[in-house]
Amino acid sequence: MSTPFDLFSFAKRIPATPSIGSTTVTKPDHIHLSFGFAAPHLFPIEQLSRAAYEAVAQHGRKALQYSGSGGPRKILEWIQNRSLVHGIKAELNQIMVTYGSTQGIDLAARMLLDPGDHVWVESPSFFSALQAFRTAEAVITSFPIDEDGLRVDLLENALLEAGRNNKPIPKFIYTMPTYHNPGGVTLSNERRRRLAQLAETYNFFIVEDDAYSELNFSGRKFPPLYTLIPERVIYLNTFSKIIGPGLRLGWMIADKRVIEKARLLNLGGSIGVFTQEILAQLLDGFAFQEHVDQLILHYSEQRDVMAEAVQSSFGDHVTFHLPEGGFYIWLQFGKHVNTSDFLRDAAEMGVSFVDGKSFFAKQEGYPYARLCFSYVSEEQIVRGVNILADAYFAYEEQRLFGLTKQQPL
Amino acid sequence: MSTPFDLFSFAKRIPATPSIGSTTVTKPDHIHLSFGFAAPHLFPIEQLSRAAYEAVAQHGRKALQYSGSGGPRKILEWIQNRSLVHGIKAELNQIMVTYGSTQGIDLAARMLLDPGDHVWVESPSFFSALQAFRTAEAVITSFPIDEDGLRVDLLENALLEAGRNNKPIPKFIYTMPTYHNPGGVTLSNERRRRLAQLAETYNFFIVEDDAYSELNFSGRKFPPLYTLIPERVIYLNTFSKIIGPGLRLGWMIADKRVIEKARLLNLGGSIGVFTQEILAQLLDGFAFQEHVDQLILHYSEQRDVMAEAVQSSFGDHVTFHLPEGGFYIWLQFGKHVNTSDFLRDAAEMGVSFVDGKSFFAKQEGYPYARLCFSYVSEEQIVRGVNILADAYFAYEEQRLFGLTKQQPL
Repeated sequence: MSTPFDLFSFAKRIPATPSIGSTTVTKPDHIHLSFGFAAPHLFPIEQLSRAAYEAVAQHGRKALQYSGSGGPRKILEWIQNRSLVHGIKAELNQIMVTYGSTQGIDLAARMLLDPGDHVWVESPSFFSALQAFRTAEAVITSFPIDEDGLRVDLLENALLEAGRNNKPIPKFIYTMPTYHNPGGVTLSNERRRRLAQLAETYNFFIVEDDAYSELNFSGRKFPPLYTLIPERVIYLNTFSKIIGPGLRLGWMIADKRVIEKARLLNLGGSIGVFTQEILAQLLDGFAFQEHVDQLILHYSEQRDVMAEAVQSSFGDHVTFHLPEGGFYIWLQFGKHVNTSDFLRDAAEMGVSFVDGKSFFAKQEGYPYARLCFSYVSEEQIVRGVNILADAYFAYEEQRLFGLTKQQPL
Repeated sequence: MSTPFDLFSFAKRIPATPSIGSTTVTKPDHIHLSFGFAAPHLFPIEQLSRAAYEAVAQHGRKALQYSGSGGPRKILEWIQNRSLVHGIKAELNQIMVTYGSTQGIDLAARMLLDPGDHVWVESPSFFSALQAFRTAEAVITSFPIDEDGLRVDLLENALLEAGRNNKPIPKFIYTMPTYHNPGGVTLSNERRRRLAQLAETYNFFIVEDDAYSELNFSGRKFPPLYTLIPERVIYLNTFSKIIGPGLRLGWMIADKRVIEKARLLNLGGSIGVFTQEILAQLLDGFAFQEHVDQLILHYSEQRDVMAEAVQSSFGDHVTFHLPEGGFYIWLQFGKHVNTSDFLRDAAEMGVSFVDGKSFFAKQEGYPYARLCFSYVSEEQIVRGVNILADAYFAYEEQRLFGLTKQQPL
């Protein structure tokens, strides 16, 4: 029976498909290699607990009002100073605090995209970004990555062709140049420079998602794209990986005219000041570099454990790039493998991962899988990768030889 | 000189005009009758300070992770229980926590509106809502209010006419039926029932902004529109007026299919859990009704002080409806008065208010002014209204008799 409700239509921008990540697992010993979560034992809980108490006690009435006490400004100043370490010079009016970098992506999309506008992304790319661009009713075109990140040469060819044939160029390119999620790769210096030149020549924005940049295991430094062409980059970062995602605080750095427009879209003006007051209190006198060094030490060990486990469990059935930072190892299986086909079996056996197709704008990416080494323990990494290999080899046997186990010899 | 940046175009949805409320006043004795802020001395600071400490100490690691500990669920349950007091029955999957009710308005607009779709609003209406609908590229039509709220009869006529002439009916009607901001009026029971019937007959949504409903000075109760036609109402409320706006936490109640779509638009899934953990800790065992009773006692006294001050300072130069709740008195001056013309003079003399035109979708509303009695002290209300009257009478004298003061007799 059709109720009046069913006659109603949502806006076209509402995607018909649900978002990913809906696998619900309740077994207590389940190993989540799917979650891109920070390691909880590295959260600065003692300091934060004290900061929360002090912030409310000292600035409570103002912290609860719309504009807050001095906290929001202190956070802007902290971001300004920390950005300098990475070569980014920005005035305070070029910085805006956001609800995580994901809100930054959404604001960039809504600022720049009319329905039918073009966005170019990497394949693979961050799934929440793909969802934001679909919701903005953009036309998404993707370009592959290799060991050195985005194939800027292919992007350049496409721009040349678009120019020759009067075809649309993108309003912006969304990229995660450093410790790519899920690819684990980093854009080379040469490609960074070329991409910045292309942005200037063809007049498009680059939305630079730099969420993992502090988690630099190798010490090798790469200039943020923002430093190469600041007036054409909307730079996004987040406290989620370095303090804790529950805060839902990140930031955008861009030309001040872009920031003004972003503020307009963020109705009600400011991001909740209460959390900002607490974070400001935490950052005041917090030994941030020491904290980051601990994160790096821990996560790089986890990466090594996972890389070794993958090699010993999978042998030459997979290849991957050893990431120099971030949270992820991106497995590439043989080209006929479809990792979605053993996702459920693996979950039932006790391990979850994200299948390749979730990271692509089109129907592709089947032979890939993203494993996250940040959230679980070393022991869980080894056990989880082992179980995953069991699930894969069972699937592979069935794929190649049919239902042999169920059949009598 | 034109830089490449200036050649770039933002999306059409980006409004060209800045938002209101940009008057910056730095004098310490300035009286802000413009701010729609809660009274800071009524914030439950001691309880919140303890809650913040305990929440972080007890649930810190989970509170900092994406999904949090039990806090978000406890808040949903609190909302569910408190809603029952107002006659609203909702399952947990019909409730979504938002970043204040303003995000709720924005989500409703983005869920339902394609560019060119129609939204009907009250005149006057909440300025952030008008901004959200402009950003959604909607066609906004407004209908006046009187002592009994929205003129539902005029709205019905317009629907009849639209039906007869095959003209577009609205995707939704945005209304603040109880203690209207800025009008101070409340929609009568009869009109509530009629509006619900119209929503059913013509198949549109009602976005019911109920931000002030707890601040009920008279004890008279009105059924939320949600209770009359739940499948056609997106109900919005907020902790901003009852706990503190710095939390930036509110909620939406709607059909679960609507809530599912709203979650899709809210990329990254959930609202920052850290603040939710703290709020959940506060609400646990908090004597909420006693707290609300204190707010009501205080704000209703403030309202009386302001109403008396307006009468003694302005005499019959203004009329207003005595609000039964909320934060605002909405002054109506003579029809040739334009309150924008003495906004700056009043600010220089030491008092700020919001001029009428800010609350209208079209170029109208000049003879109105919104005064807020919630934020300032009784003494400031009396002094502020006095200064405002001085500014008005000086303007009026000049308007009627020209530049008499500068001219010799």
